[in-house]
Amino acid sequence: MSGVDRGDATDVPDRIVERRRAFHRRPEPGWCEFLTTSLLVDELESVGVDELHVGREALPGEARMAVPDEAELDTWFERARESGAREDVLAATEGGHTGVVAVLDRGEGPHVALRVDIDGLPVEESTDGSHRPASEGFRSEHEGTMHACGHDAHMTIGLGTLEAVKRSEFEGRFTILFQPAEELGGGGKPMAESEHVEGVDYLFAVHVGLDHPSGEVVGGTVEQLAVSNVRVGFRGRSAHAGKEPNRGANAMQATAAAVQGAYGIPRHADGATRVNFGRAEVGTAANVIAEEAALWGEVRGETTELMEYTREELRRIVRAAGEMHGCESSFEVVGGAPRADSDEELAELVAGVAAADDRVDSAVTLDAFGASEDATHLIETVQGAGGLATYAIVGTDHPGAHHTPTFDVEEADLALAIDVLAASVLQTAEERPERGGREGDDEREGVVGG
Amino acid sequence: MSGVDRGDATDVPDRIVERRRAFHRRPEPGWCEFLTTSLLVDELESVGVDELHVGREALPGEARMAVPDEAELDTWFERARESGAREDVLAATEGGHTGVVAVLDRGEGPHVALRVDIDGLPVEESTDGSHRPASEGFRSEHEGTMHACGHDAHMTIGLGTLEAVKRSEFEGRFTILFQPAEELGGGGKPMAESEHVEGVDYLFAVHVGLDHPSGEVVGGTVEQLAVSNVRVGFRGRSAHAGKEPNRGANAMQATAAAVQGAYGIPRHADGATRVNFGRAEVGTAANVIAEEAALWGEVRGETTELMEYTREELRRIVRAAGEMHGCESSFEVVGGAPRADSDEELAELVAGVAAADDRVDSAVTLDAFGASEDATHLIETVQGAGGLATYAIVGTDHPGAHHTPTFDVEEADLALAIDVLAASVLQTAEERPERGGREGDDEREGVVGG
Amino acid sequence: MSGVDRGDATDVPDRIVERRRAFHRRPEPGWCEFLTTSLLVDELESVGVDELHVGREALPGEARMAVPDEAELDTWFERARESGAREDVLAATEGGHTGVVAVLDRGEGPHVALRVDIDGLPVEESTDGSHRPASEGFRSEHEGTMHACGHDAHMTIGLGTLEAVKRSEFEGRFTILFQPAEELGGGGKPMAESEHVEGVDYLFAVHVGLDHPSGEVVGGTVEQLAVSNVRVGFRGRSAHAGKEPNRGANAMQATAAAVQGAYGIPRHADGATRVNFGRAEVGTAANVIAEEAALWGEVRGETTELMEYTREELRRIVRAAGEMHGCESSFEVVGGAPRADSDEELAELVAGVAAADDRVDSAVTLDAFGASEDATHLIETVQGAGGLATYAIVGTDHPGAHHTPTFDVEEADLALAIDVLAASVLQTAEERPERGGREGDDEREGVVGG
Amino acid sequence: MSGVDRGDATDVPDRIVERRRAFHRRPEPGWCEFLTTSLLVDELESVGVDELHVGREALPGEARMAVPDEAELDTWFERARESGAREDVLAATEGGHTGVVAVLDRGEGPHVALRVDIDGLPVEESTDGSHRPASEGFRSEHEGTMHACGHDAHMTIGLGTLEAVKRSEFEGRFTILFQPAEELGGGGKPMAESEHVEGVDYLFAVHVGLDHPSGEVVGGTVEQLAVSNVRVGFRGRSAHAGKEPNRGANAMQATAAAVQGAYGIPRHADGATRVNFGRAEVGTAANVIAEEAALWGEVRGETTELMEYTREELRRIVRAAGEMHGCESSFEVVGGAPRADSDEELAELVAGVAAADDRVDSAVTLDAFGASEDATHLIETVQGAGGLATYAIVGTDHPGAHHTPTFDVEEADLALAIDVLAASVLQTAEERPERGGREGDDEREGVVGG
Repeated sequence: MSGVDRGDATDVPDRIVERRRAFHRRPEPGWCEFLTTSLLVDELESVGVDELHVGREALPGEARMAVPDEAELDTWFERARESGAREDVLAATEGGHTGVVAVLDRGEGPHVALRVDIDGLPVEESTDGSHRPASEGFRSEHEGTMHACGHDAHMTIGLGTLEAVKRSEFEGRFTILFQPAEELGGGGKPMAESEHVEGVDYLFAVHVGLDHPSGEVVGGTVEQLAVSNVRVGFRGRSAHAGKEPNRGANAMQATAAAVQGAYGIPRHADGATRVNFGRAEVGTAANVIAEEAALWGEVRGETTELMEYTREELRRIVRAAGEMHGCESSFEVVGGAPRADSDEELAELVAGVAAADDRVDSAVTLDAFGASEDATHLIETVQGAGGLATYAIVGTDHPGAHHTPTFDVEEADLALAIDVLAASVLQTAEERPERGGREGDDEREGVVGG
Repeated sequence: MSGVDRGDATDVPDRIVERRRAFHRRPEPGWCEFLTTSLLVDELESVGVDELHVGREALPGEARMAVPDEAELDTWFERARESGAREDVLAATEGGHTGVVAVLDRGEGPHVALRVDIDGLPVEESTDGSHRPASEGFRSEHEGTMHACGHDAHMTIGLGTLEAVKRSEFEGRFTILFQPAEELGGGGKPMAESEHVEGVDYLFAVHVGLDHPSGEVVGGTVEQLAVSNVRVGFRGRSAHAGKEPNRGANAMQATAAAVQGAYGIPRHADGATRVNFGRAEVGTAANVIAEEAALWGEVRGETTELMEYTREELRRIVRAAGEMHGCESSFEVVGGAPRADSDEELAELVAGVAAADDRVDSAVTLDAFGASEDATHLIETVQGAGGLATYAIVGTDHPGAHHTPTFDVEEADLALAIDVLAASVLQTAEERPERGGREGDDEREGVVGG
Repeated sequence: MSGVDRGDATDVPDRIVERRRAFHRRPEPGWCEFLTTSLLVDELESVGVDELHVGREALPGEARMAVPDEAELDTWFERARESGAREDVLAATEGGHTGVVAVLDRGEGPHVALRVDIDGLPVEESTDGSHRPASEGFRSEHEGTMHACGHDAHMTIGLGTLEAVKRSEFEGRFTILFQPAEELGGGGKPMAESEHVEGVDYLFAVHVGLDHPSGEVVGGTVEQLAVSNVRVGFRGRSAHAGKEPNRGANAMQATAAAVQGAYGIPRHADGATRVNFGRAEVGTAANVIAEEAALWGEVRGETTELMEYTREELRRIVRAAGEMHGCESSFEVVGGAPRADSDEELAELVAGVAAADDRVDSAVTLDAFGASEDATHLIETVQGAGGLATYAIVGTDHPGAHHTPTFDVEEADLALAIDVLAASVLQTAEERPERGGREGDDEREGVVGG
Repeated sequence: MSGVDRGDATDVPDRIVERRRAFHRRPEPGWCEFLTTSLLVDELESVGVDELHVGREALPGEARMAVPDEAELDTWFERARESGAREDVLAATEGGHTGVVAVLDRGEGPHVALRVDIDGLPVEESTDGSHRPASEGFRSEHEGTMHACGHDAHMTIGLGTLEAVKRSEFEGRFTILFQPAEELGGGGKPMAESEHVEGVDYLFAVHVGLDHPSGEVVGGTVEQLAVSNVRVGFRGRSAHAGKEPNRGANAMQATAAAVQGAYGIPRHADGATRVNFGRAEVGTAANVIAEEAALWGEVRGETTELMEYTREELRRIVRAAGEMHGCESSFEVVGGAPRADSDEELAELVAGVAAADDRVDSAVTLDAFGASEDATHLIETVQGAGGLATYAIVGTDHPGAHHTPTFDVEEADLALAIDVLAASVLQTAEERPERGGREGDDEREGVVGG
């Protein structure tokens, strides 16, 4: 772990706790991370970086998926402004162009990148006294929205790793990608298509927890589920429910038929599949036959093919459910991620670094993931261009499950995550060559083969 | 039609159109008619009445049903204030205590009452050029809310009738009841329990349209459907839809099962029934197993018994749907109205008055209604105390069906409605005795038999 | 009641009880009434008639609807043979050509007809001691099939009426139509198209019970529900349910979707509708994805239009249910009956006759029916040709509801039914002229206007 | 492969083809294999064995699961008698006590057993010209029943293996278990509890095909799905579907709700699950509200726990579906099999034997299974008593999938199966010691450790 100044690590915790809790208090949903981006820019400027790309400069806007409607974007934008978000950041992110990319440019050497995600979830955080954010005063201030998957921790880890790399003797280019809208499956693809990912030799992504306890580190993951996010709509015909129900075309009934059909999609011989409709808004009033329905769903598969099988089954079911009840239906794929496995070579490096740390009880090279993550878009892009990529897990004792109101992390584990990632970045740069895939990366062309 | 100054009728239209359009532009849902109440108070003061009871003074607050949650009340309250609602009215109605009762006290004579309803519907008004409110600039300014059932017309008719009665030689007591929350089935019951209904000898209620064309008047209605409004909830357990769907208890599936079961309640040998879930909000995000669902529904029946049969079937179905998917369920009756038929004697009076008017092509004594109306609470109360009551219909050519985005009325028909009602009120007072049911009405005791 | 020898009535009961119980013990489903037809022919020969038309001679075979498959026909045919059915009757009815028509030809006078139905139901008769057929030893010998709608009584009434008319001074032509397959909605249409119905001036049909108690007679019925019987099929693709469920197309799921959709067809503003799937056979084994499903259903409506509305809704739902689960679907209308109301004139005649009988407590001219009956085909045909028709009800205290295992009749009421019908037939012939609709009835042409 | 007289193998095929086709022509469902047992006894007597245990002597009758009702047993029993089944075998098997166990007793040495299954499936065999049984005249003579899973081949392999072992120098005890009712999950448990399985040191079971082509042999299988077969019933209340549908309690609707709920049981994080309702019989007639429903279903899981999770979910869903529609429900587990994996040691032995055979292109030690098999009951019992067990697969090119109308096997592969199994039995006896688990096996006690 040469190069990382471990001596400094002891004074990290205060900053870590402070940062993490600041993020935790202000969760924002995907593409609405206006305040979050502003807070990140403040922190990044305070740390000091060589390049800073905010909003439209960070991700290609036209590649975004699952962007919320204007009303929701506006609500969060105004809320961010009221909470003191910087006007320059607001200008750069207006319209849902959130996210930020920071770069340390240290001359010749490989291009190493770290990707962390930044969005919250529409979960109402627990007010129970046993839930630390509630009892210690950093519960979500945005009622109904919550950092229930640890992205507050991820941003904190990202900032800490940046500081550590900056303090180190790292040579090469270190890019940190703060990606929006992971939960929507909407930010991974544009981030992967961003110019900032071109020419990355080594990509690290990280997640905390995932049922791994404190003291356990997984170098890389395989068997992530491929995922498609879908938006389903039904448009029927409203009618007075008492006077002439027969004149309606009932979007509520179409919804029920679609939901029952969806969960009944046959299990597949070739492996695991998933299907879910997690949100629905139907109709307007008890005494009106519902004219419109909107459903938010997703399908997953152990392979991209299994995901696609499930998605096409769902597409047919939705269409038939509409026809059954005389409603027009729409079926839109609004986000997603392919399956992409971590490179064992890079996973071994991370696991090796972790194994050497006293705080680590168990260091695993590769483990199955079981859920989906649009980091796979970035992994696929980096691997496709000849680079190596890994999606590492740093365990943490989390009392509630991910995506539930009592999810929380052990903040002490964030320091470990920073140390492992920073050491991995350095070791990569020291021991490994630059790799292929540099077309279109003119400015750094001379470096190839260096 | 002695006593009504028909000569004045010709200059009514301007005021009628102006009033109706002012109400039409500012629809508010049940128990949120803050601005509406304020506008009504302005108009009533301008006309001049002997008694004016606003908000808490108009209806007993504790008897209200189907009151929206505080957040919705607050939103509409603030909107009303911003739109210039009077502070005294806001003070009297805060917390959802909307509605107003006005009285003309003209000495001895029967107590005659007219009830009109004042709330709008959660329907998004058409922007189509063929929709007159859109093309002539009085489309709803409250996006997503609309006077799609003619209550704007009813208030206008109420005010016009008051003016006509005031100008007349009417003797007795004339009370006009501006009732909130008819669409929720929530205002009829408290209005019926109000002291202002005690001792009413003759009650008129009125509705425009209902598929009766311009030129048709119905003196009274029978076979209204009894109705119960219900609020259904499911609470399951959220879980990550990809990682461990089996740990969830899926409120989305419970909702689908309940909807399928509800519409499948058997038709009944004894007569017509209805069931509808017109609105549902389920879950939070595509990748979370839905933890909570809220449904707004209603059941109806040709008799109160048939409505209750359907309601109890629905209650059992909802419970079973929850159990099927491991969710807790709740089933709350939040509003409703019994079946109550108009008195033929009073209906004949109205039909007779109408038949004598040149603008009327067809005057019908009694007709079937086919929908529900919580005016039946008032009818039941008045009839129970020995009075007579009728629910009259004044036809109007309405291009779209009730409760749909293109509903509209012929404004010329409002003048007819006013003339017919005013003449009916007068004729009642002239020809008919006071009736029973005066217990508890001490102050007017001497009047009995007068 | 001149002409009917009422004195004889007292010795009828023994024969009535005997006949009714003989029929009751041997119920056969629609188009399988081989033994029943044989028993009827025996009785008719014993009474003595002028014409006897059996099987193919009674109804035009090609017009039959809802004929069971060959296997079922064969099973009942063989069973009839084993039970001693006459070979000449078996020859005349083989292949499901059941039914018999008998004629008394008494010279000039009107053509009067009586229609009774003869089929049983797939209901397993109660073995309870309180069920008289069980305790007195005439319970169904055909396990799983039962005369649960009184057709055993109807045949008995038909034979008794024939005897009474024969004994009387009736002049004209009296035809008795023993119609098969009423429960399937399959026999009424061919019977209506039979040459034996051509030129009928007065048609009587009769039903016992229908919730009318002993002592009540209804002269005619209105508001029968129009009905369509439908046969629905799904053909998917079988697959091993454990190894590769995804390769199947599941007819079981299509069935469930169709059933839930069917019962959810909206109630109609214009009047009562009904929908039912009363029988389903799906798949072959627990561990095979079901490849095929067969469903037997029906729709009804207060008018023919309402029935057709419901049928076309159902057709669309079935198609969509198949598409939802990748199955081919079929939808076949296999039987039915239109709405046709009794003629008040003829109903009054029956009610008048009944009112004069001491055993009758209540004689009603017209009553609503609430169910369906394919006698409406005959009523429509007779009325269309200028004749009069009525569907009368003779009340009887029935402990169980129609179509249930404990249905039974009071046998004493059968004698009343015979007397009322015979007297009605005679009074018709005495007091009423022949009527129109005689095209194609050349042999009796001279009689018109006679 | 010493000891097996491979020279004889060349003249085996004729007998093999003859036997297999004789079985193929007369498939019988589980517990109805009366004729099959008779044919087996004929063959076994012709081969000559030391012990022969038929019917009640072969399996403990009280442990049988999923036994069909008496009517079905009777039908097949009579059919077997008519087809010439031996009266002694009929006497021994009457009432559904089918199956046979044969033993070669060759003195000291290990106890080796081979289990094959003998029942057919309710699948209608293809009549297509490309289906060899159809074109070559050995299609099922029992319409609607078919050997669609190769059990005809299994019996043929069993008999061939017995002959080969008999001809060899095998020392020890060789038991061949012809097990009924595998497809019902009903015969494995009683066979496992039979005294004939006590003290087995080495157990072989075999299946052909399972998507493995001709030339491929799998020594043993793991990851079989645990399975439970269930029988579900609903009892509601019948009513006339037209007159008073509200008086019914609709078993058809309960069935639809149960089916929809069943397929919607959540996928499980821990591994594969399956659920199926493969057969349903509901109601009696189109115009009667269905009173009763019977469903045949199954659940499976990658582990016994996963199967039990799915089963308990299903149990709750069935109960709730009944409650939703006012029906009583029943839920009976009528068969099943746990998960049990093959012993690698024994699988290696089989794979080794196979690899040495020229006809084998690919010999695999262990492979995943993907379906269920109640042989796992025997495997569990043998392993629990200290023995080794394996479930081997001999590949065969099968044109249609298992359980479908065009399933067929390559008969040449049966000779290979016989050779591999016989050689495996011999090699086991030569190289391997007897093993533990001999409590209660007094008569062979002296042999232990021999």
